[in-house]
Amino acid sequence: MDTRTLPEKPAYAELARLQVRLHRLNHLESMVGWDRATMMPPKGNDARAAAMAEIDALVHRLRTDPQQAEWLGAAEGEPLDEFERANLREIRRTWREANALPESLVEARTIAGARCEHAWRTQRFANDWAGFLPNLREVVKLAREEAQFLADDSGLSRYDALMDRFEPGMRAAELDRIFGDLKQWLPELIQRVLRKQATETVAVPAGPFPIEKQKEMSHELVKLLGFDFQGGRLDETTHPFCGGVPEDVRLTTRYREEDFARALMGTIHETGHARFEQNLRRDWLGQPIARARSFGIHESQSLSFEMQIARSPGFMAQLAPLLTRVFGPNPAFEPGNLHLFFTRVKPGNLIRVEADELTYPLHVIARYEIERALIEGQIEPEDIPALWDEKMMKLLGVDTRGNYADGCMQDVHWSEGLLGYFPSYTLGAMYAAQWFATIRKSVPDLDARIAAGDLSPAFDWLAANIWSQGSRWELPELVRRASGEALNPAHFRKHLEARYLG
Amino acid sequence: MDTRTLPEKPAYAELARLQVRLHRLNHLESMVGWDRATMMPPKGNDARAAAMAEIDALVHRLRTDPQQAEWLGAAEGEPLDEFERANLREIRRTWREANALPESLVEARTIAGARCEHAWRTQRFANDWAGFLPNLREVVKLAREEAQFLADDSGLSRYDALMDRFEPGMRAAELDRIFGDLKQWLPELIQRVLRKQATETVAVPAGPFPIEKQKEMSHELVKLLGFDFQGGRLDETTHPFCGGVPEDVRLTTRYREEDFARALMGTIHETGHARFEQNLRRDWLGQPIARARSFGIHESQSLSFEMQIARSPGFMAQLAPLLTRVFGPNPAFEPGNLHLFFTRVKPGNLIRVEADELTYPLHVIARYEIERALIEGQIEPEDIPALWDEKMMKLLGVDTRGNYADGCMQDVHWSEGLLGYFPSYTLGAMYAAQWFATIRKSVPDLDARIAAGDLSPAFDWLAANIWSQGSRWELPELVRRASGEALNPAHFRKHLEARYLG
Repeated sequence: MDTRTLPEKPAYAELARLQVRLHRLNHLESMVGWDRATMMPPKGNDARAAAMAEIDALVHRLRTDPQQAEWLGAAEGEPLDEFERANLREIRRTWREANALPESLVEARTIAGARCEHAWRTQRFANDWAGFLPNLREVVKLAREEAQFLADDSGLSRYDALMDRFEPGMRAAELDRIFGDLKQWLPELIQRVLRKQATETVAVPAGPFPIEKQKEMSHELVKLLGFDFQGGRLDETTHPFCGGVPEDVRLTTRYREEDFARALMGTIHETGHARFEQNLRRDWLGQPIARARSFGIHESQSLSFEMQIARSPGFMAQLAPLLTRVFGPNPAFEPGNLHLFFTRVKPGNLIRVEADELTYPLHVIARYEIERALIEGQIEPEDIPALWDEKMMKLLGVDTRGNYADGCMQDVHWSEGLLGYFPSYTLGAMYAAQWFATIRKSVPDLDARIAAGDLSPAFDWLAANIWSQGSRWELPELVRRASGEALNPAHFRKHLEARYLG
Repeated sequence: MDTRTLPEKPAYAELARLQVRLHRLNHLESMVGWDRATMMPPKGNDARAAAMAEIDALVHRLRTDPQQAEWLGAAEGEPLDEFERANLREIRRTWREANALPESLVEARTIAGARCEHAWRTQRFANDWAGFLPNLREVVKLAREEAQFLADDSGLSRYDALMDRFEPGMRAAELDRIFGDLKQWLPELIQRVLRKQATETVAVPAGPFPIEKQKEMSHELVKLLGFDFQGGRLDETTHPFCGGVPEDVRLTTRYREEDFARALMGTIHETGHARFEQNLRRDWLGQPIARARSFGIHESQSLSFEMQIARSPGFMAQLAPLLTRVFGPNPAFEPGNLHLFFTRVKPGNLIRVEADELTYPLHVIARYEIERALIEGQIEPEDIPALWDEKMMKLLGVDTRGNYADGCMQDVHWSEGLLGYFPSYTLGAMYAAQWFATIRKSVPDLDARIAAGDLSPAFDWLAANIWSQGSRWELPELVRRASGEALNPAHFRKHLEARYLG
């Protein structure tokens, strides 16, 4: 979008120019953020934090520049085309977001979140719920205030208002329907799969797997999955992420010598995010329309790569020779065995981020129900552990009593005041299943083509229906246009049944 | 310097706060600049350039914020301590620098320099002086205008005004005295050294030297020379530099498999710059007083490391076992031979950046004389080649006729409009010799201690007299306080005679 020459749309041009400036400042923030996680030596931290706070403040000032209110009004009456109108809608969204909260609350929330998260890092490993609770109370108190402000501003309920920042248009009522459906059949499905898997023998590839070899593996995989190294990098961090900017995507992964599978699936997951960013429409970059519609939609790409492609039986035909080439021959690399290995269900696992595809949604549903009750004031922070234990027993059959570290203290989200985010993970998994059900309608031999190394049908569909669409449509419209219907848990169920019982 | 609580110095506090903001924005610029040179994939370039231009503009706005004029006036009357007063002097200097040129000239100069430099990259290798000349004419025209503005503002002559940005307080009259002295004895000294070296046999270490091994060598050397890896990194680039910020210094070097010596000395050179940055007073950071006094003073640190320490006979006792450990045994690594190898004079070398310690100053003097005549209007750009040939023949006895690529087109400086900078290189070499003459007065066994691996006498002196002083004193005062006298070419001469004829 060339914003220099829009004489008949002066207000829109001003708004778009401001977005370009924000895009450039965000470039700097992203890059030094990536550097901090991958490159920065420890003594650089304080100066880096100060520099990042400086640009944060600058960005905040620009985002809340009151001139925008006037421009937004005037732009409505200007002769905008369809894309510009969609972009204007998104600019308005970012403007409302930036202005919804009083500065004092933003500051209080940032400080409380930082304090709670910092203490959490040690408290978690000390299993110190009592020490964590007072900080969490403050964070929850402020999150409730935040939710109230957002609710007043938007007319939504408090939890909906929080969630709307991550899943614009998604509502708790809809989630209740979707997650209620899952709760009906998923626990039983897990039991059936466990009975089936109890009869199977899986060879677990034995390590060590040298880090240098794992790096080679990751680079090969990322290339195989279409990542453009001319417009991005792959590096190492403690916590893998997909950072940088669409023009220069910075993938990261982590390696443990005894376990190649984690780096493998972690890298593939982040590659899904990366390809979304690398394939956003270049001519829209800098404008809000050139961003993923929601966190769940972004996650639907990482999970399209990790769950729909990389854990499919066909992909094992690609993986087996690659692993043999990198690590040397190993009977466990036989494709059939690899598939058993990568689809093994472990309900005893207490940790969400290590959960398998089948149990993961139940971890999310438990968190959703608890955080929603917290925000709506039905429970208090001190009620969390008992509720956690109850839900974990009911949904997953695991006993978490007294184990806060691997229980309700395991995630960083709540400590930082990040409430309303968890649903996006499972929405992403369900969208991904729906996308691939759609792809299979027009490409019935999709799995055979994946097995033959032809990933283009999947990539082409995702590029046309998701990556290039950015925030052009509101969420329900995007889903309907891509798949012909609203989000439908039946696709997720069918996918899981086919993979785990088929 | 805590600028938050200076109630009785409100104007000074405002000025200092603005400097802190600039320091933070400069942090971002430095880091993404480093990233561009070391990490960035090619497709990231356009977005990076746009992001850097955005923050450049921001920094320019802050640096020229007219409120400073008022604060500068008011701060003069405030009860400042000695450091604050020195800092105020430096703030005033940066303020004058930022405001000395009209914006239109800054812009024209930037555009002309970028165009000329970009074309130069290919023209140089095509030996295309005729193609280069029109661009250079425009660059020189604008440099003359710039010099005139700076001269009008400062009351200096035009060349002095340009040089003052790099060597505040150094004047062409002083340079004429110093360089005139060098021209008296250096060409003859070179002839005597050549006659001496003609009788010596040097074993040249034969490669290849694997890049991975050279990286190991560089890391070991940098550690040996006291670089703090907790506050910095060492990476690879096309053009070595010392970047980043004092809190997080980013060293870079380059490797060629056939030649370990270049990476070795290049890394040591940059480490000298790096230790300066890492040892600026932490409590002053963010203020102009915590910056090197001049480019020549900064260069005096890289050359203290490269020429005074690393090329000393004593240091070979450290280098020999290190090289043997890294590359395996090699008869050429014998300390005596290494010293011959690293002090070999090659007058036939046409390229400044590859010149040895003895001939380097003559390369600089030729450039100084030419660029000064250019700025003063005594010659025009088309006169450069003939003048170049004449000076190279006279000073170094080399024939450069028709060879523009390795002659007057070899440096990037003029193409970018960077005039007045070359003298700093040789001033740095002379300062370094003067520092070490001073150190030897109180530590007569310096060389024996270097040979024994004890570099602390040199480091301690540099820390106390140079690194920790930043811009506390004006240039002549800094030199006098450190060495007890003004810059004196006799020290440089003595150093060269002792090393090359002793």
